[in-house]
Amino acid sequence: MTPGTPPLVGQIIDLALEEDLGRGDVTTRLCVPPNAKSEGRVIAKQDLVVCGLDIFEAVMKRVDPDTEIEIMVADGDRIEKGTLMAMAKGRTASLLMAERVALNFLQRICGTATMTRTFVDAIPENCSVRLVDTRKTTPGLRYLERAAVLVGGGNNHRVDLGGGILIKENHIRAAGSITAAVTNCKQQGPHPLRVEVEVTSQEEVNEALAAGADVIMLDNMSNPEMAQAVKLIGGRALVEASGGVNLQTVAGIARTGVDIISVGAFTHSAPAADISFLIN
Amino acid sequence: MTPGTPPLVGQIIDLALEEDLGRGDVTTRLCVPPNAKSEGRVIAKQDLVVCGLDIFEAVMKRVDPDTEIEIMVADGDRIEKGTLMAMAKGRTASLLMAERVALNFLQRICGTATMTRTFVDAIPENCSVRLVDTRKTTPGLRYLERAAVLVGGGNNHRVDLGGGILIKENHIRAAGSITAAVTNCKQQGPHPLRVEVEVTSQEEVNEALAAGADVIMLDNMSNPEMAQAVKLIGGRALVEASGGVNLQTVAGIARTGVDIISVGAFTHSAPAADISFLIN
Amino acid sequence: MTPGTPPLVGQIIDLALEEDLGRGDVTTRLCVPPNAKSEGRVIAKQDLVVCGLDIFEAVMKRVDPDTEIEIMVADGDRIEKGTLMAMAKGRTASLLMAERVALNFLQRICGTATMTRTFVDAIPENCSVRLVDTRKTTPGLRYLERAAVLVGGGNNHRVDLGGGILIKENHIRAAGSITAAVTNCKQQGPHPLRVEVEVTSQEEVNEALAAGADVIMLDNMSNPEMAQAVKLIGGRALVEASGGVNLQTVAGIARTGVDIISVGAFTHSAPAADISFLIN
Amino acid sequence: MTPGTPPLVGQIIDLALEEDLGRGDVTTRLCVPPNAKSEGRVIAKQDLVVCGLDIFEAVMKRVDPDTEIEIMVADGDRIEKGTLMAMAKGRTASLLMAERVALNFLQRICGTATMTRTFVDAIPENCSVRLVDTRKTTPGLRYLERAAVLVGGGNNHRVDLGGGILIKENHIRAAGSITAAVTNCKQQGPHPLRVEVEVTSQEEVNEALAAGADVIMLDNMSNPEMAQAVKLIGGRALVEASGGVNLQTVAGIARTGVDIISVGAFTHSAPAADISFLIN
Amino acid sequence: MTPGTPPLVGQIIDLALEEDLGRGDVTTRLCVPPNAKSEGRVIAKQDLVVCGLDIFEAVMKRVDPDTEIEIMVADGDRIEKGTLMAMAKGRTASLLMAERVALNFLQRICGTATMTRTFVDAIPENCSVRLVDTRKTTPGLRYLERAAVLVGGGNNHRVDLGGGILIKENHIRAAGSITAAVTNCKQQGPHPLRVEVEVTSQEEVNEALAAGADVIMLDNMSNPEMAQAVKLIGGRALVEASGGVNLQTVAGIARTGVDIISVGAFTHSAPAADISFLIN
Amino acid sequence: MTPGTPPLVGQIIDLALEEDLGRGDVTTRLCVPPNAKSEGRVIAKQDLVVCGLDIFEAVMKRVDPDTEIEIMVADGDRIEKGTLMAMAKGRTASLLMAERVALNFLQRICGTATMTRTFVDAIPENCSVRLVDTRKTTPGLRYLERAAVLVGGGNNHRVDLGGGILIKENHIRAAGSITAAVTNCKQQGPHPLRVEVEVTSQEEVNEALAAGADVIMLDNMSNPEMAQAVKLIGGRALVEASGGVNLQTVAGIARTGVDIISVGAFTHSAPAADISFLIN
Repeated sequence: MTPGTPPLVGQIIDLALEEDLGRGDVTTRLCVPPNAKSEGRVIAKQDLVVCGLDIFEAVMKRVDPDTEIEIMVADGDRIEKGTLMAMAKGRTASLLMAERVALNFLQRICGTATMTRTFVDAIPENCSVRLVDTRKTTPGLRYLERAAVLVGGGNNHRVDLGGGILIKENHIRAAGSITAAVTNCKQQGPHPLRVEVEVTSQEEVNEALAAGADVIMLDNMSNPEMAQAVKLIGGRALVEASGGVNLQTVAGIARTGVDIISVGAFTHSAPAADISFLIN
Repeated sequence: MTPGTPPLVGQIIDLALEEDLGRGDVTTRLCVPPNAKSEGRVIAKQDLVVCGLDIFEAVMKRVDPDTEIEIMVADGDRIEKGTLMAMAKGRTASLLMAERVALNFLQRICGTATMTRTFVDAIPENCSVRLVDTRKTTPGLRYLERAAVLVGGGNNHRVDLGGGILIKENHIRAAGSITAAVTNCKQQGPHPLRVEVEVTSQEEVNEALAAGADVIMLDNMSNPEMAQAVKLIGGRALVEASGGVNLQTVAGIARTGVDIISVGAFTHSAPAADISFLIN
Repeated sequence: MTPGTPPLVGQIIDLALEEDLGRGDVTTRLCVPPNAKSEGRVIAKQDLVVCGLDIFEAVMKRVDPDTEIEIMVADGDRIEKGTLMAMAKGRTASLLMAERVALNFLQRICGTATMTRTFVDAIPENCSVRLVDTRKTTPGLRYLERAAVLVGGGNNHRVDLGGGILIKENHIRAAGSITAAVTNCKQQGPHPLRVEVEVTSQEEVNEALAAGADVIMLDNMSNPEMAQAVKLIGGRALVEASGGVNLQTVAGIARTGVDIISVGAFTHSAPAADISFLIN
Repeated sequence: MTPGTPPLVGQIIDLALEEDLGRGDVTTRLCVPPNAKSEGRVIAKQDLVVCGLDIFEAVMKRVDPDTEIEIMVADGDRIEKGTLMAMAKGRTASLLMAERVALNFLQRICGTATMTRTFVDAIPENCSVRLVDTRKTTPGLRYLERAAVLVGGGNNHRVDLGGGILIKENHIRAAGSITAAVTNCKQQGPHPLRVEVEVTSQEEVNEALAAGADVIMLDNMSNPEMAQAVKLIGGRALVEASGGVNLQTVAGIARTGVDIISVGAFTHSAPAADISFLIN
Repeated sequence: MTPGTPPLVGQIIDLALEEDLGRGDVTTRLCVPPNAKSEGRVIAKQDLVVCGLDIFEAVMKRVDPDTEIEIMVADGDRIEKGTLMAMAKGRTASLLMAERVALNFLQRICGTATMTRTFVDAIPENCSVRLVDTRKTTPGLRYLERAAVLVGGGNNHRVDLGGGILIKENHIRAAGSITAAVTNCKQQGPHPLRVEVEVTSQEEVNEALAAGADVIMLDNMSNPEMAQAVKLIGGRALVEASGGVNLQTVAGIARTGVDIISVGAFTHSAPAADISFLIN
Repeated sequence: MTPGTPPLVGQIIDLALEEDLGRGDVTTRLCVPPNAKSEGRVIAKQDLVVCGLDIFEAVMKRVDPDTEIEIMVADGDRIEKGTLMAMAKGRTASLLMAERVALNFLQRICGTATMTRTFVDAIPENCSVRLVDTRKTTPGLRYLERAAVLVGGGNNHRVDLGGGILIKENHIRAAGSITAAVTNCKQQGPHPLRVEVEVTSQEEVNEALAAGADVIMLDNMSNPEMAQAVKLIGGRALVEASGGVNLQTVAGIARTGVDIISVGAFTHSAPAADISFLIN
C-alpha cells in the first residue's frame, strides 16, 4: 500500500476478507486445481476517475503474497470505458478468492472519486470555490473515502470531531449565543483549529463576525441570501455553503462567491463505479 | 440490539465511533455544559423503508448508556417524508457526539432497504420472482446490508464464498467443462448447498441440466433468450437472471419467467436515505 | 500459509503465541545464546494422517521470519510412526520459543484428520456414504478443523448457522409442523441452500417428503428403522444419519443405505496426534 | 462471568459466536417467531465433573441479555448422567442461536475437568502426588482449560514460557551443561520462579542437585529408575515425572514417590463431555 | 466512564488487564475466599491534581461489575496528601485483582495533570500565555493524557498529524521555502486547520508572515530573540515557543509575550502521582 | 523485531501509529513530494543507556517497508550525548510520518533502561543485591518496559498476577494469618512459583520462616530493621526490600544485606530520554 496508509486500512481489508472468505471458497476448492495459474485484467466498464488500485493490490496480496499486480493507471486519471486499469498474475484460485473483495473496495473508492470529479467539473471556470467532503462517510472507510475526494479534485472538511471546530445550532443554543460559543472556542480551543460557526441569517452573520469566527457556514440559504452574506462578510472570514447541494445546484451556489461548498453525497451516496475483473 | 446480532456488528460500531469521536468532540466540549439535557427527534426527510433503528440505538447507547431511545416505527414500515422515526433523550453532549455516526449507519441501512423495496414494487403482480442481493456489499457491513435487503422485501443470495456453490466461467474453464465442474460439486460439495452454475447459451443450459445443476444462472442474456432458457429448463432447476438489472429492466426480466433476479445495486449503489436528527 | 487462508487463522496463531510467549521465554533467555543456530525435526510418534504443516510453518515464521521450514509430507498422507514430517532450521532460541504453540496446532489438526480417516476406513467398500463433520468444533478453530476433516477423507456439513438450513425439533415445534417449517424455508430461504429437516419416525419422513425437503436427517434411529426410511425415501431426498455414531457403529449405519453420516467426534473429541519436535 | 475472568475469555466467546452466528441463523429466522419464549434444560448425558457453567451463561447472555440462566450445580460437583445442570429461559430464537456455541465451550471444559478427576481418582490413597497440566493446551483456551484442571482436582504447571523456568535438554545443550544452565537461572532468573530442570539419568540428577535445582523433572524414566531418583534426591528438590502417563500407568508412577506428575492429555486429548440442551 | 469516551479507551483498559490478570491471580485464588467482601480507599500520598477517577472506576467494574465506587473529588481538584479520593466496595478478591491496573492508570493520569498544573502555576499572573501539550505522548494513552493536560489547566496542541498543519524544517526544505510550504498549505489544506510554521530567525518570521502563516512557532530561540519576534509579528499571527521549556525557564519564556508554549514533558516525563489503595 | 517479540508488541505499535497517523499527515501531504528521499539520524541528546532500537525500526518499517535502518549501537550500551544511534534512509514523507511514534517508543524505553542503570550504579560494589521492577508499568507496555529494566542492569520481579505468588497484607488478613496464607500457597500453588510474603515486623518474619516462605518482603522497614531481619532470616529465605526506594536511599538499603530491592520508579516515573531524529 501507499507508504503511510494507517494500520486501520489493513484491518478493514482483513475484515472484508473475513466476511467473504472466512469460511473458505467452496466452489474454487472443488473446481480449480491449486496450482493452476492465470492472469486477470481490471477493466473500467464506464468512464471513471481512478483511485484505490493500491488497495486492490493489497487485497490480492493479502490472499496470496505470490500474486503479482501491474498497475497501468494513476490515481486521479480520468479514463474511458474499456481502459485496462491493472493486471493480476498468479494462482487462479487466489485470483478468484480475492476478486470480489478487491473489487468491492476499488469500485466504491473510484465511485467516490468519480462523483467528486463530476461535481468539480460542474463548477464554472472563474469560481475558485473548493468542494469539500463531510463526516457522512461509510463506517470504517473514512480514511479511504476522504483520500478519494482529494483524488477527485475535491478537498477535505474536518477529519473528525477532534479535527476541527464547527459550532452548529445546538452548540449555539447550549452556549447561549453565537457570541458565547465562538468566544469560548476562540479562547479555549486548540490553536491549530479555526473556529467555524453555522448561521442561518444575516444577523447571525454579523454576530459571528463580531465574535471573531474564522469560517462562517451558511446553512440552507438561498443563493441570493448567500450572495448577500458573502458580500457582508467581505473576506473577513471564509464562507462555506451547506445543504441542498447537487449536480444541478452546485454551479449556482459557486457563483454566489462562497469559498467552500460541502457535499455529503461524495461519501454517502456515490454509486459504485462499474469495474470488471476478467480472468483468462 | 436485536438478539442474535453477531459481535462483529458491535465492532463496526466501535470502529465508526473511533473514526469520528476517537479524538474527542472539541466543539461540544467547549460549548455544551456536561449535564445539559435534550431530546432529539429522528425524522425522515424523504419517503423511505425503515430499517436499522436498533443500530441507531446501539450507537447512541455506546456513547452514553444513559441515553434513552424510543422507537416509533418498525423495520419494513414504509413511511412518508416528515415521519417521526424515533426519539432520543439524554445528555445534550452525548446526543451531539453520537449523532453523526448513528445517522451514518441508519441512512445507509434505510437506503438499502428503500432501494430494494423500489425494485420489488416494480415487479409485475403475477410474477413470483425473488430479487436477491449479491456479494457486492460494503466492506464491514455485509451482515447489516443483507438484513436490509430482507426488510426491503428482497431475498438473500449466498452469504459468502463458503455459503453457496456458484460455478462461474473461470471455474468452468479450470475444471474443463460445465459437466466436470457441476459433477465435482455435486459429488464433493457440502450437501447443504445447492449447485448453481452460470451459463451463457442454450447449449450450456442443456449441459448444466444434464450434469444435474440445481440452479442455473443466465449471465447477461437478452430477455427472449432468458424466456427460451426458462422454457427449456422447464422447472428442472431454479433459474437466476444476472446482469444489466436496473429499475427500467427489472419488470421485463421478471416476465421472462426466471425464478430469481440478482441485483448488485442494492448493496453497492443505494444512496443514503435522507434522515435528520433534530435536537431541541 | 496456503493461499486463501482467512485472516482469522492468523489471529488465532497470534492469540496462541500471546498465551504462551506473551511474557517472553525466561528459560531460553537465560540459557540460549541469541545467535545460536539449530535444526529441528518434526517426527510422527504414531501412525497418523498429515494435516496442517502450513500452520506449523506459519507459527514458526511468526516467531522468527528467518526460520526456514522444509516440509517432507503432504496433507492427507498416511504416515507411519517415526516418519520425518518437516525440518526447521534457524535460531535455536526461535525454535524453542515457537515449538510448543506450533505443535499444539499441528497435533490437534492431525488428530482430527487421523480420526476422520479411521472412520472413513471403517466404511464398507461398497457403501458410497459420506462422513461429515458438525458444528461441534473447538472455539476459534472451526476453519482449521473443517479443513482437517476434508483431508482425512470426510466431508463438511454446513459451515455455520447461515451456511445451511437445518430444521430441528425446536424449529418444527415453533413453526407448528414439519410441513410449515419446510414450506417456509423452501419459499423464503436463500436459494443456494438446500432444506434439511430432522425426523424421528416414518410418519415424519413422509411429511418431510411431501413438504419437499431436500435432505432428511434421521435422528437417533435404529439401523433397521434407518434402512426402512432409506427405502421409503427412495432417492427423493438425501438421507443423513445422526446420533450414536462411533467406530463400532459406523459400518452398520453405512449399510442402512444412508447418504450421509454426521460425526461430532471428529471435531469435539479427537485426541491430539503424538508428534515430537527434536532439536539437535 | 466469575469476577476476575480476563478480557480475553470474552474475546474467545465473541470469536466463537462470530464463527457460528456471524452470518445469522437462517433456519431460526424462517421458523421461529421472534418473540416466542421457551425454556431449555442443560442435561448431563454421562457422569461428569461440572465446570464452566459461567461461560455457558456468558455465551447465552451475549446472544441475548434478556435470557435468564439458573445454575443448579457447582464447579467441581461430580454428577450422574441425567442430572439437570442448568435452566435457560428466554426467547426461543435466542436459545437456539446460542445453544451450539455455549455447549461447545461447556462440553470441552467439563471434558477436561472430568478427565482430570478420573486421573486424580486413580492415585492410590496414600500418595500425596499432585497431577499437573502442561502447556499442551488448545489455542485460545489456556485460561479456561487450566481452570478446569484445578476444578477436576489437578494442579497447574507453569502458565506460560514466562511463568516458570524449565530447563530442557535443548537449553542444557545450548548452555553447555546442566550446571551452567541451572546456575544461570538461579543467578539471573526472576526470583519469584523456581528453577526446574529435566534429567534423564541418575548422574544428571546428581548434577542438577549440586547446581541447586529447585525441581527435577524425570523425563521418560522407568518406574524403578524414578523410585531410585526420588531416593537419591531425598527431599532436596521437588521431583516431577513426565512422559508416558496414562490411566493405566499413573498409579504406578505415583507409587515411585514423585511429588508431581504432569499429564498432557488433560488439555490435548480430553473428549468433550456429553451434554444436551433440551428446549421445550 | 464519562459519556463520549471513545471505544479505544476501553480497549486499552482490557489490554492492561490482560497484561496483569490474563493468567489469573494465583495468590488471591489461594488466599481469599471468593465471597469475602471489603472496602478499599483511594488515598493521595502526595499533593496532586485529580484526574481519571472515571478510568479507575471503569477498571474496577471491568473486573467485577458488582464493585461499587464512590468518588469523593472532582477532576481538576487540587488535593493534599492524605485526601480520600474514592471508595471501592465489593468482593475482596475483585478489589485485589483490579487494584494494580486501576492505579497504574490513575497514577499516570494524575501525574500528567499535576505536572501541567505546576507549570501553569509558574506562569506570571499578567501573562495570558497558554501551555500546550505535544504529540510526545505514551503509546496508547494519547486521549487520556491530552484530557489530563486540560484538567491540569493546560491546553491541547494538534491531536495528531491530521488534526493540524505544522510545517517544520524538513517540510520547508522539501517544499523549497517557507513561502512555498505555507502557500501550499493555505491553498490546499483543509479549511478547518490553521497553518503553523516553525521558524528559527527573524528573517524567517518575516517570510512566514508574508506568506500568510496563521501561527508561527519559534524554535529554540533565546528569550530576547523571542521577545523581538513577538514584537515583529505584532499580533498578525499567533506565536508559539518551543524547545527548552522546563519549570525554571517557563516563566521567562512566558514574559517574552508569546501566545503559546508547548511542553513535551507533560506527557513524556511526568512521574506517576503517589496514590495508594488501602483495603480493610 | 527481535525474534520472539510477542504479537502484542506489534499491536501496540499499530495502535500508536493509528493514534498519530490514523487520519493521515496533512502537512507532509501538502509539502513533501511523494518520492523525495532523505536520510535521518537518530542522535542521543543526553547520556543514556541504549534500548529499543528494534522497536524504532519496526515502527519505521510499518509505515514504509522500504525504509532502511542501520543501527549503530547495541542494547545496553552506555552512550554519550551526541552519539549517533541509528540511520534511517528512505522516502522523506515516510520518515516524517513515522518519526514521532518511533521516538515516543524509543525515548520511553531508553528512559527506563537509563534510570535502571543509574540505580544499579548507585549500589556499593560489594553488595550483590539485585534491583527489580514491579507491576507498576505503563498500560500496554509491560513487555517492553521489563525488557528495558534487564537491559539497564536490573532484574524482573513477577511478570503478572499469575507469574508469581506474593502474599500481601490483605491476603494475610483474608487467609487468617501468615501461617495460613503461606501454607495454602506452598501446598496448592503451582510448583514453578516460589512463595513470597510481605512482613512488617520481626515477629512476622519468624512466622513467615516457620511457615516455609521462600521469599520474605520487608515492607517499608527502616534500614536497621531490615539489617536485623536479614540477620534473623540467615539465608533461610530470600529477602526483598520494598518501599521508599530512591536514588538517595538505595545504597543504604543495599547495605542492609537484602537480596532484592524492588523499584517502582523504573517503570512508573522514568522521564523519557532526550533523543532527536534529524532528517537532512
